[in-house]
Amino acid sequence: MAARGGRIRTSSNSIDPNEDPVAGLERVMSSSNLQDSARRRRRREDELLFSRQFDDSERTDSHEALSARYESLNYEVSENSLYREAEKKPYHQMTLWRISRNRWLVCFLIGVFTALVAAFIDIMVDYSKDIKFNWILKYLISKCGEEERGTTAGCMWTVMIAWIGYNCLLVAIAAMLVIYVAPIAGGSGIPQIKCYLNGIAIPEVVRLKTLISKAVGVACSVGGGLCAGKEGPMIHSGAVVGAGISQGKSYSLGIDFGVFREFRNDRERRDFVSAGAAAGVAAAFGAPIGGVLFSLEEGASFWNQNLTWRMFFSSMISTFTVNWILSWFNGRSGWLSWTGLANFGVFEDKEYNVWEIPLFLLIGVIGGVLGALFNYLNTRLTEYRKIYVSSKLGRLFECLLVAAVSGFLGFLTIFAVDDCQPIGVNPTATSNQINRMWCKKGEYSAVASLFFQNPEESVRSLFHSPINSFGATTLIIFSIEYFLLTLWTFGISVPSGLFIPALLSGAAWGRLFGIIVERLFPSITGIDPGKYALAGAAAQLGGIVRMTISLTAICMEATKDITFGLPIMLVLMVAKWVGDIFNEGLYDAHIDLAEVPILGWNPPKMSRNILADRVMRKDVVALERRERVSRIVEILRSTLHHGFPVVDRIEESPIESLPDYGRLKGYILRSQLFKLLENRIFVEDGSSSNLPADFYECQDDDEIGNVGGA
Amino acid sequence: MAARGGRIRTSSNSIDPNEDPVAGLERVMSSSNLQDSARRRRRREDELLFSRQFDDSERTDSHEALSARYESLNYEVSENSLYREAEKKPYHQMTLWRISRNRWLVCFLIGVFTALVAAFIDIMVDYSKDIKFNWILKYLISKCGEEERGTTAGCMWTVMIAWIGYNCLLVAIAAMLVIYVAPIAGGSGIPQIKCYLNGIAIPEVVRLKTLISKAVGVACSVGGGLCAGKEGPMIHSGAVVGAGISQGKSYSLGIDFGVFREFRNDRERRDFVSAGAAAGVAAAFGAPIGGVLFSLEEGASFWNQNLTWRMFFSSMISTFTVNWILSWFNGRSGWLSWTGLANFGVFEDKEYNVWEIPLFLLIGVIGGVLGALFNYLNTRLTEYRKIYVSSKLGRLFECLLVAAVSGFLGFLTIFAVDDCQPIGVNPTATSNQINRMWCKKGEYSAVASLFFQNPEESVRSLFHSPINSFGATTLIIFSIEYFLLTLWTFGISVPSGLFIPALLSGAAWGRLFGIIVERLFPSITGIDPGKYALAGAAAQLGGIVRMTISLTAICMEATKDITFGLPIMLVLMVAKWVGDIFNEGLYDAHIDLAEVPILGWNPPKMSRNILADRVMRKDVVALERRERVSRIVEILRSTLHHGFPVVDRIEESPIESLPDYGRLKGYILRSQLFKLLENRIFVEDGSSSNLPADFYECQDDDEIGNVGGA
Repeated sequence: MAARGGRIRTSSNSIDPNEDPVAGLERVMSSSNLQDSARRRRRREDELLFSRQFDDSERTDSHEALSARYESLNYEVSENSLYREAEKKPYHQMTLWRISRNRWLVCFLIGVFTALVAAFIDIMVDYSKDIKFNWILKYLISKCGEEERGTTAGCMWTVMIAWIGYNCLLVAIAAMLVIYVAPIAGGSGIPQIKCYLNGIAIPEVVRLKTLISKAVGVACSVGGGLCAGKEGPMIHSGAVVGAGISQGKSYSLGIDFGVFREFRNDRERRDFVSAGAAAGVAAAFGAPIGGVLFSLEEGASFWNQNLTWRMFFSSMISTFTVNWILSWFNGRSGWLSWTGLANFGVFEDKEYNVWEIPLFLLIGVIGGVLGALFNYLNTRLTEYRKIYVSSKLGRLFECLLVAAVSGFLGFLTIFAVDDCQPIGVNPTATSNQINRMWCKKGEYSAVASLFFQNPEESVRSLFHSPINSFGATTLIIFSIEYFLLTLWTFGISVPSGLFIPALLSGAAWGRLFGIIVERLFPSITGIDPGKYALAGAAAQLGGIVRMTISLTAICMEATKDITFGLPIMLVLMVAKWVGDIFNEGLYDAHIDLAEVPILGWNPPKMSRNILADRVMRKDVVALERRERVSRIVEILRSTLHHGFPVVDRIEESPIESLPDYGRLKGYILRSQLFKLLENRIFVEDGSSSNLPADFYECQDDDEIGNVGGA
Repeated sequence: MAARGGRIRTSSNSIDPNEDPVAGLERVMSSSNLQDSARRRRRREDELLFSRQFDDSERTDSHEALSARYESLNYEVSENSLYREAEKKPYHQMTLWRISRNRWLVCFLIGVFTALVAAFIDIMVDYSKDIKFNWILKYLISKCGEEERGTTAGCMWTVMIAWIGYNCLLVAIAAMLVIYVAPIAGGSGIPQIKCYLNGIAIPEVVRLKTLISKAVGVACSVGGGLCAGKEGPMIHSGAVVGAGISQGKSYSLGIDFGVFREFRNDRERRDFVSAGAAAGVAAAFGAPIGGVLFSLEEGASFWNQNLTWRMFFSSMISTFTVNWILSWFNGRSGWLSWTGLANFGVFEDKEYNVWEIPLFLLIGVIGGVLGALFNYLNTRLTEYRKIYVSSKLGRLFECLLVAAVSGFLGFLTIFAVDDCQPIGVNPTATSNQINRMWCKKGEYSAVASLFFQNPEESVRSLFHSPINSFGATTLIIFSIEYFLLTLWTFGISVPSGLFIPALLSGAAWGRLFGIIVERLFPSITGIDPGKYALAGAAAQLGGIVRMTISLTAICMEATKDITFGLPIMLVLMVAKWVGDIFNEGLYDAHIDLAEVPILGWNPPKMSRNILADRVMRKDVVALERRERVSRIVEILRSTLHHGFPVVDRIEESPIESLPDYGRLKGYILRSQLFKLLENRIFVEDGSSSNLPADFYECQDDDEIGNVGGA
């Protein structure tokens, strides 16, 4: 598919993609009769009006343009005469069977390798935490000595500097991987995957070096204490695994394994990328159904039963494998207990009452408003960042600054907030030494346990700990700090997901909401702030990303229970509705910021009544059924189009200003033209020796609509 | 869309749907040049070849034809000039918003009313069981006296005759509802819903009288002890609810509430029917995600994000409401504990090991083979039934016979098999009096508990009871008997589902498989036959219906756990693959038997290389842009087509045998023509007074492709 019309703004150094440089036709303006010229005038006025509106919008919103860097993927099956001949051969059924078997094989491998990547990331994060807590901090704290604690701040400064230094080191690795190796590996990768699944070829998005930068980078940025999750990057990693395995070769390594050649086209690759993305979600949350629904919801322009079933297979294999590896890593080899990377824990008390529904709806409203605020601020921040932090060193410096501030704020909060709870109040809290901080013996610092635990552990403890585990002040401060830090972190040049930080911030204010409800209506027993934390987490995340179906499924699967399905769903629905009043989802906003020409589900409001022929040029770069090689080469040199329509004839029309194209005969891809020229598949024409030849010709009327690389 | 080409065989009393009775054109055969006639000859030969193949297949397989009773639904949006004018009006955005709000409202109502129907069925079955056990049997058994039991068979004969008589009474009600009120209410209704969702207008499938017959009938047939489930009919009921509420009127009652007029077209109605079907699944199994996936998998020809989200909403509301009602019915009002109608219970021991995977795969193979056998036998049986049991009385008699034999076989087995287990071996078994039968005090009859419990309770006890609860003989006999009875029952004229009977039969042989594994490898501890029962149940059902994605989700949700997701999925995959070697799924087989012209996902093998223009007639019943009313009336009288292409011109072509149609301008529906005639929207033509008028005219070039009810 050639460039999309309408919003395209081409950069100055590329040629106009809609201009035919070698059509050999002047624009003829013979006003043969009044009616024709009147119609033309009307159309020209419309065009002028449209272009004026377009110019206006360009002036006011300079980022509202689309980059010409992106081309479409080619999903058309070239059903040409060669293909149909092959179909009639006796072994064709066997070939189909073999391809079908290979699809399943590839999906199996995608599941396994995605799980390996997930397990790698998880284990790396685990080790880095181990080093931080058990080696550096334990050593320093023990050196400070028992008697000094709580009195000498100087020793704590040493601890803090060591802590921040270690964080900065890891974040620097992550940032350098993104800045110097694979820029596309920055962020969560979900916007890029969404574009890819909807048919946009994003350069380098599914390369091996992107995968390596992403996997190592996200382990470093999460290990480095940033407000970042490993779940979004897992989805991107799964997608790269899907693309890589199905193609049987790697551009980054320059290796071609020579397998799965039948899948080397955009259509098959897109299918496997969607399976990989589903496997990524499945590995990240232990949510195979959620993974499938994610791929369907985000890559929503296709739906195919068999493909969905294979996606489901990949997801299941991925969840299964990651559990197997992690059970082996944790010393319980062979047991396939179900966890995934982000395990939200099981709610003991699974019941809620009808009168709690309005409260959940209110949480949805709050989540929608906060989510919209987050998106607005993050979009503005990203715009400023594009302008003012554009150099490589500047971006590296910003990453280090974020890491330092994140670490410093955590320590500052622990200094400032005095929320000591007796050990035993919260059975889910792990009592390592750092959590004690300034508290007396037999107590632990609730603030420290929130800030210094694994983010997933913090989510679990907000969901499941008893009502008095966290003070209201702790929750307010934690929620605001995490909100702001996440705002700052999402968009810097490190691989970083949004899911866990958004869930954490939401869980904190949701829990606070639950505590307030409990104080306001003391007569009602059975309020469990953990449920409100769950609702708040869902609301905050839903308000930011505006996903609905898949997020409900993911939350249900990550909590391993469907009891809270209805409240989660209502919360997500309300959060999306409220958020959509203000702005669009964060991923869509970032897609816009990257100037990607994606077509969403719904047409933009303004364009509802505009027909395609109003915004598309009619003098396209077309080919006739017989073309000279010279013209083909000229066209390939002077345009970047991915494909060209093949028409009956390109002739001057006596009455219209446009050439008379006759009827559309088919469509030929740039890659097919290259292949034909490479293999010199054209006919020498004896009569004129200096011009190469008849190049392309349809043999038969049957070819109508099916022209392709014959 | 007009009638589909190819496999259509029209019945003798209807006219040829492809013949244009009033085109006013003879077929011209002017062989203008050699090339043309050669091409024509070649085509005629192809046609002859094709028609010969077609005739052959007709001779060998007489049911391989399609009935002309079915027409397509009209999914096209008629985007005509009126519509576009309305779109430009200032209040148009408000209208869109109102329609969107109403869609959600309707989906909410669909959820609530589907749940009400589900609760009604459940409560009716409960009462009928109550009458049977607590009134009739308890009275009779107590009359027989304690001392006689086990010695006098005479008294048991009385009990048996009362039992069978009661069953026959209920089944007679169900059968009469189907035979005399709504024939379409027979069976599970899933094949019909599948057709409807794929665009076939099945007469009366979504009428209120169908719903009532279905709901009351299924309560009677399940209460009457048939091997029938209430889950399939629930899906059909949900679909009817969806259609009824969205249309705001009822044909059966002749009432028009005058609401939701904007949804009175096939496209909107199909969407709401899919939401209703999803809500039905959700209510039946407590599986909201499974419901959505069911609608997507079965009605797979569409996928739309917003629609999916509304389907999910309906499903959630439905699950929620049914739980609320049933919790109130069971005396725990207000608690939204999650059950649904078919509750498979929770597995206590949730773990399995990697080496068990091959065993699950083997179960999948067995399930596939048994499922294919079931489908083969049931298809043959249905064919014979169509021929030999065609009278209404004959069908009623068959239903009564099935009811009597089902009851009798149950008693016979209890007489023949002596499987007494001490009470306490199986804590899940309910110990009502009938279960004791001939056993000593302190024991109960395992056979009786299988045959006389609610089918859902039997499934639960096969899944969860300890290893020694059932003897191997009991399981073999029960499995075979249930298999055969289900085979006989599915297709008789009562509303009856297939899910629970298939699950029961599969659970029995799956449990047996588990016991055998345990005996073969006594060294391995931890074999839980309940897990194998689950796998067997899934395999048997999957082998019969060949559903995959949705069935996995339903099983996962009905067992309230995702731990067994992978084994269930593998089992279903293998069962489908193995079954597909032999024949197609039972629902598809029944669709074929009903001669419905459905187009599946994959083209039939033979037709892979056939182009549409080979099988479709080219001299269609077309309209010109200006037509006389007389011709329109004539066409409407003489054809049954749902719509007509509008073309440039219908003129004799000088060279071709077909008329020259010019270009296709659009498509006009039969219903739109009726509306236009009804409201006399046509122009009187003064020049010729005896002919009514110019009837239809496109005003503008813009109309191209968008002709409709202007």
